[in-house]
Amino acid sequence: MSQERLQALREELQRQGVEAFLVPRADEYQNEYVPPADERLAWITGFTGSAGMAVIGLDKAALFVDGRYTLQGQQQLGDLPIALENLDNQVIASWVCEQLSSGQSLGYDPRLHTEPGLALLVKRLSERDITLKPLEKNPIDAIWRDRPAPPCGKARPHPYVFTGEHSSDKRQRIATLLAEKRADALWLPNPENCAWLFNIRGDDIPHLPVALSSGVLFRDGSATLYLAERAVGEGLLEHLEREVTVVTEKGQLFEDLHRRHVNKIWVDPSISNCWTLQQLRGQDLQLLLERDPVIQAKACKNAVELAGSRAAHERDGAALCEFLAELPTAVENGLDELAAVKLLYRKREEREGFRGNSFETISGYGPNGAIVHYRASPESSLPMQAESIYLCDSGAQYPDGTTDVTRTVALGEFPALAREHFTRVLKGHIAIATLRFPSGTCGEQIDAIARRSLWDVGLDYAHGTGHGVGSFLSVHEGPQRIGKAITNTPLQPGMILSNEPGFYLTGQYGIRIENLVFVKDSADYPGFLQFEELTLAPIERHLIDVELLTISERDWLNRYHQRVREVITPLVSEKTALWLQQATEAV
Amino acid sequence: MSQERLQALREELQRQGVEAFLVPRADEYQNEYVPPADERLAWITGFTGSAGMAVIGLDKAALFVDGRYTLQGQQQLGDLPIALENLDNQVIASWVCEQLSSGQSLGYDPRLHTEPGLALLVKRLSERDITLKPLEKNPIDAIWRDRPAPPCGKARPHPYVFTGEHSSDKRQRIATLLAEKRADALWLPNPENCAWLFNIRGDDIPHLPVALSSGVLFRDGSATLYLAERAVGEGLLEHLEREVTVVTEKGQLFEDLHRRHVNKIWVDPSISNCWTLQQLRGQDLQLLLERDPVIQAKACKNAVELAGSRAAHERDGAALCEFLAELPTAVENGLDELAAVKLLYRKREEREGFRGNSFETISGYGPNGAIVHYRASPESSLPMQAESIYLCDSGAQYPDGTTDVTRTVALGEFPALAREHFTRVLKGHIAIATLRFPSGTCGEQIDAIARRSLWDVGLDYAHGTGHGVGSFLSVHEGPQRIGKAITNTPLQPGMILSNEPGFYLTGQYGIRIENLVFVKDSADYPGFLQFEELTLAPIERHLIDVELLTISERDWLNRYHQRVREVITPLVSEKTALWLQQATEAV
Repeated sequence: MSQERLQALREELQRQGVEAFLVPRADEYQNEYVPPADERLAWITGFTGSAGMAVIGLDKAALFVDGRYTLQGQQQLGDLPIALENLDNQVIASWVCEQLSSGQSLGYDPRLHTEPGLALLVKRLSERDITLKPLEKNPIDAIWRDRPAPPCGKARPHPYVFTGEHSSDKRQRIATLLAEKRADALWLPNPENCAWLFNIRGDDIPHLPVALSSGVLFRDGSATLYLAERAVGEGLLEHLEREVTVVTEKGQLFEDLHRRHVNKIWVDPSISNCWTLQQLRGQDLQLLLERDPVIQAKACKNAVELAGSRAAHERDGAALCEFLAELPTAVENGLDELAAVKLLYRKREEREGFRGNSFETISGYGPNGAIVHYRASPESSLPMQAESIYLCDSGAQYPDGTTDVTRTVALGEFPALAREHFTRVLKGHIAIATLRFPSGTCGEQIDAIARRSLWDVGLDYAHGTGHGVGSFLSVHEGPQRIGKAITNTPLQPGMILSNEPGFYLTGQYGIRIENLVFVKDSADYPGFLQFEELTLAPIERHLIDVELLTISERDWLNRYHQRVREVITPLVSEKTALWLQQATEAV
Repeated sequence: MSQERLQALREELQRQGVEAFLVPRADEYQNEYVPPADERLAWITGFTGSAGMAVIGLDKAALFVDGRYTLQGQQQLGDLPIALENLDNQVIASWVCEQLSSGQSLGYDPRLHTEPGLALLVKRLSERDITLKPLEKNPIDAIWRDRPAPPCGKARPHPYVFTGEHSSDKRQRIATLLAEKRADALWLPNPENCAWLFNIRGDDIPHLPVALSSGVLFRDGSATLYLAERAVGEGLLEHLEREVTVVTEKGQLFEDLHRRHVNKIWVDPSISNCWTLQQLRGQDLQLLLERDPVIQAKACKNAVELAGSRAAHERDGAALCEFLAELPTAVENGLDELAAVKLLYRKREEREGFRGNSFETISGYGPNGAIVHYRASPESSLPMQAESIYLCDSGAQYPDGTTDVTRTVALGEFPALAREHFTRVLKGHIAIATLRFPSGTCGEQIDAIARRSLWDVGLDYAHGTGHGVGSFLSVHEGPQRIGKAITNTPLQPGMILSNEPGFYLTGQYGIRIENLVFVKDSADYPGFLQFEELTLAPIERHLIDVELLTISERDWLNRYHQRVREVITPLVSEKTALWLQQATEAV
């Protein structure tokens, strides 16, 4: 079937007069997860991973995926005549330069890319006199007959009891920043920023509780929200105050800017698609190309959001404990990785406000745990037995907070080295948990603190130490991060981050210990910040080599476990409470 | 007197048709230290610090210095009508925008600035329609009647026994990189790069053993070296092989490029002055504006350079030990900070190959030690007594290596808290000294490792943890660094760095413990790197709170001290050997 799709696409490319076409896994909002109607990469290549790019030429084609998806890419491509390459802009550029010759064109859908994302390609291709050509009509859409309908969820008000700040106050706050930059308007390119600014939520994207939307904030605090007509549900217009106009025709943006006498508009090119930028440039507008201020504001949670997150984490911790307590019996009775995912989901479903997983659960037994971004499928799902290590990374959406937690547990016997590996990961986790750092410190400056105990014995992990997390929004939220990559973003009070060092022994097991934490002022030292744990669940005691812990590391663990026990015990069954008692005993 | 200079300069500005003039502390090579003939900032403002900028307008003027120079700036400005401001490009831009109006011009000498250095000013001024105008003749030079002559030292061959690589091999090595980038030539903008590439040294700059020079390397490995006629001394032309042409007229560069059919020239704008770039742009040349490859090559020392550095550090350590051993008696007999500088200099002079200090010694007793970049003057020099803490940061140039070492010693009684502070600094020092880290790690990623023990109690230090060091070259050498600032430069085997955490209690004392180390492959863990100490001198045992050290920290200290004792004892007097015995006893 896909051979025919390829053929059809190639004919369409010839009709549109380009020699190749760029297929990202992206929608026009640059969402991390995309609705089915935007799964063009999967439709044309079969590849369903969360990141990838294809270039379809008239004769040859290539799929570019990163290291975690190499195996999956091979399997899903099957015998399609598409080469598998490494997802790297230099590699993509080189591949295109080899296939096309001077004077030819690579087409792209400008709605699905950002300018910084294409910058390297533009440079490399222009050196070879190859044109990167924006196409008005996406060639895949032109031939995709059974393309799923766009999402049709409603946008719902997200009440003050969860947000702690009225939209009007948020808008005034951001409008002040506009005034400082002498900008007349701010382009709100994506549903996440709209969700935060207007206090609305929806169900249009898997795992991300938003309604597809974009908008403009004006310097006086008024705003326009672009939303599909079908998304305008009961109570929405009453919730949005008078200063917010809902417009169901996105294309009206440029007229609206003109009508409101906008001369200078603030646009963040790293999150806005090329099409919008190209259109804005054609409008005789002055563009202020700077970091989006909503992203920064959204990242710093207020007291209500933090209280909500605490409450959500208590319920989520209780669900996770019910799951962990039941696990040994369930394994005895026969449980595979996929069944474990379902069991955990059921435990969460029982908790108040549960609105689904915040991402697809990673449930990896033994060697599957060593695959960092592993997702169990019916083909890969291993039956779990009482003889190895099980890694479970999961999270949930609740109206009061988003969770993300990883626990690694011993299901009986395990390789002797695993205890040292687990303990070194734990030492790294505690090093971040107990870190005090001066205001102004960025995540990239403290990442090594989490790795040092592994580095000491020549080990490391090939992922970041922590990512930002939203408030009933994306489980991966910027701008803060703890990792090697440069964020240039100081960690600030109210920011929620994950703390998740790990270690992976290919073919054997994976270890990761992940809590969400938030940044707060140090009570003792003015000018210094520290973290406080949100996540509440026991850390596997059987995998700890107590001899490797310092006294203060042991103290931290015992204090943390005591808190878990005190908070979670009243929320779980008697049986789980007994398990919890043991699981949190002092070491 | 300086009032008259100001007046004369203002008249000259009017003659040249600009409303203000930018005076950096810089020469045309962007040297860290500048020859007397380039001390224009000192000549016009009186300020002699190592970093600063002035803007002289027709009515008003301002001197911009950083925090460490605020006091000195005030003192040296005296009652001159020049405002003192913070050295920050935004502050400078704002000041200029306030003073000048639309249509007016700020003049600058394009030989004394880099384009990245001026970028912010260009942007801010152009928004206000103020022109940044390059002046062909520096207005200060036009009125500076008794301007010192330029340096007149000779360029000397630096022999293979110290460099370990012939210039021809270095040139071929760099030429390969040119070929990869399809560049026909590389502009060598400064004496340091020429010194390394051509294996020459000189005496034109304080503390930096180079001859003022610039050059061009061509793609075939041949080169042109621009050098003043007076600098061409005995043996130089024989030392420089046939492929290197010495040209005594710098202005011939553009003809040379033309004659050699250069189409594309590699220029690093961060180290090349604006004038050269502007001229090259006028030549119909293609410019490759990338990081200079010589800087990277120079940073990674070969086995001969490392062996030389080890040998230099043994002699330097012996000299420092003689000084430290004699210090208590000298203090008893009456010694002030300046006399201590001289005493240490005399100890170094006795050592083979000593060619002067590698920077101006920091000799700070008690409260003066708390001033990070303190330089004792006859007015500030405190008499030392047996009742506080003394910080001494010094270094020397030897043909086989450059040294830089800080020791902080107790001269008797000291404030009780100093012991905790010293021990926390020591813990940070040991944390870097013992760190193992994966290949690819940059200095900015490990800086926090040195700070954590201070952060734990809400303390920090306001300088970097380490800087690169040259091989009989600059004591401050890039591109590597350990600090908060982004270098994007992985630490590589052979790189020499300082490891110098500190702590400063204003009005009381300063603490810093600095060793030079070099990066090497980990013997035990492939893919991992670690440091090895070059500096050999005892770390003050009286200031250590042994209770605060972990067992492995104590082990490191005892092992280090044992090595210091074994290596240095044969090189010092009997009296010093006895002192060394005690100073390196196990804790």
